[in-house]
Amino acid sequence: MPELIPERKPTNRLLLGPGPSTTDPRILRALSEPTVGHLDPEFLRIMNETMAMLRYVFETENKLTMAMSGTGSAAQETPFLNLLEPGDKAIVCVHGYFGERMVDMAGRAGADVTVVEKPMGQAIDPEQVADAFKKANGKVKLLSIVHAETSTGVLQPLDDIVKITHDNGALIVVDTVTSLGGVSVGTDRNHYYFVYSGTQKALSCPPGLGPITVNEAAVKAIQERKTKVHSWYLDLSMIMRYWGQERFYHHTAPVNMVYALHEALRIIQEEGLEARFARHRLNRDALIAGLQAMGLKLVVDDGYRLPTLTTVYVPEGIADAAVRGALLNDYNIEIGGGLGALKGKIWRIGLMGYSSTKRNVLTLLTVLETILGGMGYKMPQGAGTAAATAVYTK
Amino acid sequence: MPELIPERKPTNRLLLGPGPSTTDPRILRALSEPTVGHLDPEFLRIMNETMAMLRYVFETENKLTMAMSGTGSAAQETPFLNLLEPGDKAIVCVHGYFGERMVDMAGRAGADVTVVEKPMGQAIDPEQVADAFKKANGKVKLLSIVHAETSTGVLQPLDDIVKITHDNGALIVVDTVTSLGGVSVGTDRNHYYFVYSGTQKALSCPPGLGPITVNEAAVKAIQERKTKVHSWYLDLSMIMRYWGQERFYHHTAPVNMVYALHEALRIIQEEGLEARFARHRLNRDALIAGLQAMGLKLVVDDGYRLPTLTTVYVPEGIADAAVRGALLNDYNIEIGGGLGALKGKIWRIGLMGYSSTKRNVLTLLTVLETILGGMGYKMPQGAGTAAATAVYTK
Repeated sequence: MPELIPERKPTNRLLLGPGPSTTDPRILRALSEPTVGHLDPEFLRIMNETMAMLRYVFETENKLTMAMSGTGSAAQETPFLNLLEPGDKAIVCVHGYFGERMVDMAGRAGADVTVVEKPMGQAIDPEQVADAFKKANGKVKLLSIVHAETSTGVLQPLDDIVKITHDNGALIVVDTVTSLGGVSVGTDRNHYYFVYSGTQKALSCPPGLGPITVNEAAVKAIQERKTKVHSWYLDLSMIMRYWGQERFYHHTAPVNMVYALHEALRIIQEEGLEARFARHRLNRDALIAGLQAMGLKLVVDDGYRLPTLTTVYVPEGIADAAVRGALLNDYNIEIGGGLGALKGKIWRIGLMGYSSTKRNVLTLLTVLETILGGMGYKMPQGAGTAAATAVYTK
Repeated sequence: MPELIPERKPTNRLLLGPGPSTTDPRILRALSEPTVGHLDPEFLRIMNETMAMLRYVFETENKLTMAMSGTGSAAQETPFLNLLEPGDKAIVCVHGYFGERMVDMAGRAGADVTVVEKPMGQAIDPEQVADAFKKANGKVKLLSIVHAETSTGVLQPLDDIVKITHDNGALIVVDTVTSLGGVSVGTDRNHYYFVYSGTQKALSCPPGLGPITVNEAAVKAIQERKTKVHSWYLDLSMIMRYWGQERFYHHTAPVNMVYALHEALRIIQEEGLEARFARHRLNRDALIAGLQAMGLKLVVDDGYRLPTLTTVYVPEGIADAAVRGALLNDYNIEIGGGLGALKGKIWRIGLMGYSSTKRNVLTLLTVLETILGGMGYKMPQGAGTAAATAVYTK
């Protein structure tokens, strides 16, 4: 036996990174309620209510709207595994880490993948997509794209890309891991076919479930497969029978995590989507005003900046790790560093769900000013918080 | 927006079915502690401690011992996805529902599967396995078998089957979903190659994680693959870099669920494995004595009965659903019904982890006597609890 391991002492971090965000205490409370059986009538009701509320947040009437029993990454792989069969053609848009991952996933599903690429920090152009369809030389089964790139902070405009995809008869798959619950997704209004997300960003629930919504055309494509899905665990043809009327036993749902998601969605219902989106935009605007007043440079151009995640360059002469270390160790605040080509070069600051508040914006700006000032970075004292406050009082 | 959904009212079930078992309140408390980042030094320490304690429970020194970020079913699919490549030969032993599922999983991984079968309620014979290897006509990559069949309550003897598998140079994969933490698994002592489990049975943690342990030979087999694993999400070659020293980002771990597992394992450390196994055997023996004194017939022969799950035939003339409905609705007690060929014919009574107590045994026997008596079933009054008590006072 290893030495007896002592009880953990909870650390109360303020999570202002790319996710997880700080979990709302109401959701923590729901998480800790007694476990019931996964086929208990009580739990079946909770599943039904969760589906109904997920439809509200995804802005859809899609019947197949539920949560995969894995993290957002499991939800991300679900459309590729379920919609693609070996030899199918797919177009994958890559403007950051999560686009790259989709290329890998589509390839594992056996697809012939065409990549449409933009450097990290930029958005994909509709013209690139139109070109890719022209060069595809045959029917393309699906196009996938990230709505909110967590690695860069880019909000991808999708209207024209959706239209081109539809005109070419392909299914469109949209990654909303960092937008759902913080930015309008508008599944039905925007005619998306398959949308997935995670729970630990703007829903402010712990990581562990992967909400998805699938329209009728995409369900039909799944039902018409000629081959079995490569993964039993992520096979929607069976999972939809578990979450559906039939209640066919597939796997044991993560009961307490579903309690948490249920409460997270109730909180969103209470606030209302429009108010919630406005709150995320306002706090982002205040944060950006503050960062700019401190002389920091943003990674993403105006008009493409996510309301949930702001990216900023580490200033010349300042050590990325030292700043993030001081934030974490001295102030219990987490922000994120860069991924891939942006490693060591940028910070990723999340204001998601429960974490998107005026207090957190002013706290972060003040603490950042203290830390950067201590490292010899020159800026007008108090300029950051003053600029943020000006946004709030405007 | 759907109508505002009211707060859930927690229902405090006593879970005596095939799983989930009742979650220990200490574990519920751990579950609800503030979420930290998945790359936070605090969380990395928790991951390391969880790995160390999982090694203790699996009875292994295997370095690759961690929890998959999905339910036990995700853990179940992991060996098939990671060890098998298209065209590989596999032998799958089927003596219940979970064996059948392995056949499906191995097939999806592209394997050429030979099934070794026994009727539900019985154990696989070593001779059947030896025959299957003889007839395999070429190298068999792996053999998989269920140690504790949740659909039947059978504890499968494995010594001879392991020896035959080793002699034939195949990797042995063992399902311990319903044994880990309640029955000795003995991974190293028994020379298993790949063992997986779930959290919601004898660990008494909510469902949502899938503990696994993989020996060096199996890790080598994964590293020597010629093709990519079909699923990115369940690809161990990447996940082992996330749980390993490197801390390579793969997906965002379900942070709060890992807290819960950490606490569940601490509780097991405190009790000690031997004491825990003895407790499970004692309570099973008392339950069986009680059920038999009430005239009920057991499904599984003596010597093959799981300490964690007892199966018993629904008596002649008694309606399965009525009894389970009365238990649930009038007494807040859940037991399980039969699966597949045993649907409507048996009850599955779990005494797992926190649920395996003297109090629960006597409670269930008393309530069952009341319900069955009310339905006209004839038995000597109080015989069940008297027989169980006799086991405890022996």
